Amino acid sequence: MIGQHCTWDVYHADRTRLSFVPHIEQMLHAIIDTLKLAKVSAAFKQFEPAGVTGFILLEESHISIHTWPEHNFAAIDVFSCQPFDVEPVNRMLAEMLQSDEIICQTWERGRLPLSLRKAN
Amino acid sequence: MIGQHCTWDVYHADRTRLSFVPHIEQMLHAIIDTLKLAKVSAAFKQFEPAGVTGFILLEESHISIHTWPEHNFAAIDVFSCQPFDVEPVNRMLAEMLQSDEIICQTWERGRLPLSLRKAN
Repeated sequence: MIGQHCTWDVYHADRTRLSFVPHIEQMLHAIIDTLKLAKVSAAFKQFEPAGVTGFILLEESHISIHTWPEHNFAAIDVFSCQPFDVEPVNRMLAEMLQSDEIICQTWERGRLPLSLRKAN
Repeated sequence: MIGQHCTWDVYHADRTRLSFVPHIEQMLHAIIDTLKLAKVSAAFKQFEPAGVTGFILLEESHISIHTWPEHNFAAIDVFSCQPFDVEPVNRMLAEMLQSDEIICQTWERGRLPLSLRKAN
């Protein structure tokens, strides 16, 4: 595997917490700090009257979020060239977005040439 | 469905075309033009001696790319709140990265409340 790509579909989230950039930006920075990823640059957009789309470019990876407060829904993804544990992210999203239903999926992106794969 | 999320794993790509920001940035802009998506902001990083990570934030969506010239590999994803056709992207990636193997996968992100789903 060359990269690990995880997506989170967050349902029943608190509408206010999905609505504005400052809370969402703070949450993404907390996640990348927890995953020990290194920030390169960031961009966020505030929708009117509510809703956020945002992205932080990391070293050879990224985290993105798109929120729909009107559906109490957020879509998050993290791509990283280093494997990482999704459990802390699950807990942070549940707490920071006040959600009781989070669907997390993990995809392996890119198979290595046979000569570089670990035995087993 | 609230959003469509597509990933492309591009193998056997031309090493030079994966190596530097200008070609990769031009390719991403060509893809968003083809998909008729609206750019909000962009960020790219050049790795030394070669390799690119990049992201364009779109209106309620995004496109990202991470390249590994040493593996002749690139990982691309597009998230959009509007459904889109992946075939033009498949053709553009094959041509602009000179790849003969592209694995494209599409995910539906977010179910709508029952009251908002189309009957069919």
